[in-house]
Amino acid sequence: MRLHFKLENVVGSARAGRFTTLHGEIETPVFMPVGTQATVKGLTPDSLRTVGSRMLLANTYHLLLRPGPEVFKKFGGIHRFMNWSGPVLTDSGGFQIFSLPHSRRIHEGGAEFQSYVDGTSHLLSPEESIGMQKAIGSDVMMVLDQCIPSTAPWREAEKAMELTHRWARRSLAARGESPAAMFAIVQGACYPDLRKRSVEDLCSLEFDGFAIGGLAVGETKAERQDFTELTCGYLPKHLPRYLMGVGKPIDILEAVNRGVDMFDCIIPSSLAKHGMAFTGEGRLQLRRVKYKFADEVLDANCDCIACAHYSRAYLHHLLKSDETLGWKLLSQHNLRFYHRLMKRIRASIVDGSFADLYRSERELLVKTDNVKDEAAL
Amino acid sequence: MRLHFKLENVVGSARAGRFTTLHGEIETPVFMPVGTQATVKGLTPDSLRTVGSRMLLANTYHLLLRPGPEVFKKFGGIHRFMNWSGPVLTDSGGFQIFSLPHSRRIHEGGAEFQSYVDGTSHLLSPEESIGMQKAIGSDVMMVLDQCIPSTAPWREAEKAMELTHRWARRSLAARGESPAAMFAIVQGACYPDLRKRSVEDLCSLEFDGFAIGGLAVGETKAERQDFTELTCGYLPKHLPRYLMGVGKPIDILEAVNRGVDMFDCIIPSSLAKHGMAFTGEGRLQLRRVKYKFADEVLDANCDCIACAHYSRAYLHHLLKSDETLGWKLLSQHNLRFYHRLMKRIRASIVDGSFADLYRSERELLVKTDNVKDEAAL
Repeated sequence: MRLHFKLENVVGSARAGRFTTLHGEIETPVFMPVGTQATVKGLTPDSLRTVGSRMLLANTYHLLLRPGPEVFKKFGGIHRFMNWSGPVLTDSGGFQIFSLPHSRRIHEGGAEFQSYVDGTSHLLSPEESIGMQKAIGSDVMMVLDQCIPSTAPWREAEKAMELTHRWARRSLAARGESPAAMFAIVQGACYPDLRKRSVEDLCSLEFDGFAIGGLAVGETKAERQDFTELTCGYLPKHLPRYLMGVGKPIDILEAVNRGVDMFDCIIPSSLAKHGMAFTGEGRLQLRRVKYKFADEVLDANCDCIACAHYSRAYLHHLLKSDETLGWKLLSQHNLRFYHRLMKRIRASIVDGSFADLYRSERELLVKTDNVKDEAAL
Repeated sequence: MRLHFKLENVVGSARAGRFTTLHGEIETPVFMPVGTQATVKGLTPDSLRTVGSRMLLANTYHLLLRPGPEVFKKFGGIHRFMNWSGPVLTDSGGFQIFSLPHSRRIHEGGAEFQSYVDGTSHLLSPEESIGMQKAIGSDVMMVLDQCIPSTAPWREAEKAMELTHRWARRSLAARGESPAAMFAIVQGACYPDLRKRSVEDLCSLEFDGFAIGGLAVGETKAERQDFTELTCGYLPKHLPRYLMGVGKPIDILEAVNRGVDMFDCIIPSSLAKHGMAFTGEGRLQLRRVKYKFADEVLDANCDCIACAHYSRAYLHHLLKSDETLGWKLLSQHNLRFYHRLMKRIRASIVDGSFADLYRSERELLVKTDNVKDEAAL
């Protein structure tokens, strides 16, 4: 129980809580920007703090290959290396092994794959993954799991789940005396009986929280929501729940409404790179020629640096000129959009008004989810 | 005499002065970062102010093609458009016409060329250039000039110089009632008699300063220094002198020693993009594997954000991972290196110790000019 997770209030299934890491306290629900290479694309830690980021995700797979564990050991971990004083959650590398187009072989021992950096062969075992996460100095480590398409047949899903459980035990053993927290990952694809078994088996072990794995890998949006709800229903109430890699603002709202506490996603910066901005009037494609002369700010309700100082026309100009400042300003804006949303969600759970907020935000976010300017892509 | 240039002290040929623009006072010698597309690569105006930038250069040619004059007219100029409250100097576009690989034709009227943005045909005449510089809201405009290789034969150099003089008169007429300052450009390649004639002819007109043009386009370094010195000797002492596009730190020191007051160059950010950092121990190539574990800062004597918060190893990692934050941090560091140098130079001219500083900095900068880590390129 390293995180001392405490629920402050619950409205329906939506939960407001807080937990304590080795690098400070975090209020939930929380959105974590993704710092794949020990940097959130283009932004300094100062900028991240300013937009409201409090906890980051870092990718064990990428950091294992570059700069590698020895560099983190020398620097005493990622916090000092990248100058980030807040908590860091690390994934296990399992999802990258599953999704990246490199030759790989999964067996009882772990996952064998080749480095995209230098072609060398690696075995990512539970012990290797946890060793790397310890070298990174993670505040919240994830067990290594086997990801499979969520549409896999029952027998295959069961096998992957069982392997994931055995790896979870090995991961826990590999943690040893480390004071870092560790989350298990619930698998079971889209089979209710497997999801239930997965939770029951993992609950018998000393994990500090649970991730809901095996979603957003092939199933429909309705299935994802249903299995999020179903899995949250099985999970113990006194530990935090994390929906990995999710998602768009509307997906986060729906998942909070089903009992999820933690999120991470690359969408705020990856859409920024393509010129997309989240606003109260929908997602805007700033590369469109209609913004060439647009004197208004991105979003009059936003307090980010881009909205404080720049017009849509200037952002349009930067994007058309492929200037990195355009990407950076949109990233900050999009992250601010996410963090403002999380803040409103949390406040409404604390004061009991979440049901009203859910209805009104949902209407807005369904709109936001549509690209208003699709034609420009 | 719109700039009210005042000399504070002179040591040998080196001058410390100040002038007043429509956007505040500037101390000379001054180095101006280049904001080609109405942004200095990757940096916000706040970051620029923090590293010590006080005046920027913007490129009329690029801004004419994108976003175009109508956008600047709508926004009332570049200052509000890019959120920069300090002065901006604009070039005329002449150098880009000369150096960019697009079909062009020079005649009495101006320079005909095709847009790299959309292929449309343009005539850059003196009137068109000044019109665009007025739309940009320039504080210091440059006349349109004809650039030729500095190794051109005497007759060709004379012809280009005479055309430049006629264009200078047309540029001055095109300024009209604008309160912005305007600099003439001295031409004459590497011919002392032409340089003298060029200065004499241009001095008869009401310019607020002089650029030394036609250098760094084919001649040797010694020739550039000689013709800088010779041209400064002809120029009136009560107006500022600007050596366009120069240069490396050592070049700036040498030019100040010969009487130049103003500089601009893309080197601090273009070298940063290639992983190069200026330091007191020479230019470092941070991509080299020797920095993988390097725990020390870039330059212990620097007060920039990169040196305050990051190790060489982290910068190395960002550069190897092609993360834009690496470029941005090195740009800030390199610009800070330039501005710290300018500050030391100016202080030594004001207190009369420039000759000593020149000797000691020169020794250091010759070292800095060598890439310590050349092997990695």
